[in-house]
Parts: sequence; structure tokens; C-alpha cells
Amino acid sequence: MKPAVGEVVALLDEGLEILEESDCRALLASRSVGRVAVTIAALPAIFPVNYVVADGDIYFRTGEGTKLRVALVGAIVAFQVDHIDEVQRAGWSVQVVGPAEEVTDADVAPPVSPWAPGLRDHIVRIRPELLTGRAIAR
Amino acid sequence: MKPAVGEVVALLDEGLEILEESDCRALLASRSVGRVAVTIAALPAIFPVNYVVADGDIYFRTGEGTKLRVALVGAIVAFQVDHIDEVQRAGWSVQVVGPAEEVTDADVAPPVSPWAPGLRDHIVRIRPELLTGRAIAR
Repeated sequence: MKPAVGEVVALLDEGLEILEESDCRALLASRSVGRVAVTIAALPAIFPVNYVVADGDIYFRTGEGTKLRVALVGAIVAFQVDHIDEVQRAGWSVQVVGPAEEVTDADVAPPVSPWAPGLRDHIVRIRPELLTGRAIAR
Repeated sequence: MKPAVGEVVALLDEGLEILEESDCRALLASRSVGRVAVTIAALPAIFPVNYVVADGDIYFRTGEGTKLRVALVGAIVAFQVDHIDEVQRAGWSVQVVGPAEEVTDADVAPPVSPWAPGLRDHIVRIRPELLTGRAIAR
């Protein structure tokens, strides 16, 4: 059944296709590097991290005393994953907003190895409270 | 001349190689898609945008009344560009922090066409005040 005109409009945001939550979850699980946005000394900052998804939550590692770890404690953060084709000029972006917390019980966290060298023995979990996605449809 | 041990340590940040500002500028100019971090309704948000660099400043387009545009007005934002090789588990990330402002005089802005459909007739410029970069060295 074709959607009514009103429904089609509701599925677009500034020319971008709005992805359903199930698609957002599938896309989130399909990648291995995302970006975390936090506030450090009242300034925004973006850090790329490699991550895994387990039970819908996002897990990654960081080091003791890093700027990222300090900024994450008890914070509401944005986590974003995308796939952009610079030749086709197409792609999608999925964003999660939710609280970040350190996971101290290794049993509950899935295995996630940091790509970057250096000791990164703190596991951070982001629980998605908002999950949204947009795509450039061709 | 080989650097002294102390100098080598100073060029590392948690196991990541610290890039020089000239390298950061070259890498920034080498890509066409980056991510802007802003605060919307007290929550962090990340938007991918396609951009161009001119005279060291970053330019991209956005639409009238978009969440992104509203958040950008007079704000200090983070803009981040990276290139990650998921197979080699290597890559770099360059981050800019600085004020965002709308450019109303089209003469001063370089041509930048939005990839996404929809009317995006507002040009935003970010003037880098902080420019930092990290790389995973292999």
C-alpha cells in the first residue's frame, strides 16, 4: 500500500530520509568505528573510537585519566556512526544519545579491543535513550 | 637528527602520535566530509557535513531553520575529520574548535554544494582557533 502524501513528508527531514529505529540498530551494529561527542572545559570535542554493540548498548575502551574518560563520567553523550560514499555522494548517519558509564564488571561487557596502542583498560558503555538516523536516498 | 627520548614521549598522547599543525591543515584539506558537534537542547549532537577549506577556514551549507543551523549561531563548535582503515586498524583524526558564523556575503565564501537534497542556502564558516590531530602510527 502506498503511503499517503502526508506520511511521505513525515519521513523526510530537510531532504534526508528518516531511518526507522530497527534500521538504525542494524546499521549501528554493522560498523566498528564511531565518534563520541563530549564537552571538555566547556568546549565540544569529538573522539573516534572502535566499539562493539551488545544487547543494544555500545561499548568501547579508554585509558586511565584520559580527557575522554574524564568527560564521560556520568555524562550524556552523543555517539555517531556513518558510512559516506564520497564518490556517489550518498550515505547514512545514525546517532545515539544517552548516558555514558564505566563498566567495572568485565563479565557484563563484551570483548572489545582498542585499536590504538597504549593502555586502555577502562570499558565505557553508552545506553541509547535516543536513536535516530538519516540517509541520503538516491 | 634523532629526537631525544623526552621529545618522543612529548609527541605521544595515550599511545597516539600527535600531528603537527601543518599536517593537520593538510589532512583537513584532503577530505570532503567531516562532522560537526553542537549542543541542542542541552544535549550533544553530531552532524556529518560535506565541506571545503578556504584560507584555513571551513565552509559548509545548511538549510533555513534546521536544528543544526539554530545550534550553530554564535556557538563554539567542534569539527572533526578522520580517515580510518578498518582492515589495517589504523588512521588519523583532526579536530578543529572555533566559532561558527553564517556567511551572508557569498563573495567571501568558496563554492560548496551540499550533497544532501533539500534547500540548503545558508553558508556556515568555522574559524579554527584550536587545531589538533592524532594518528595511530604503525
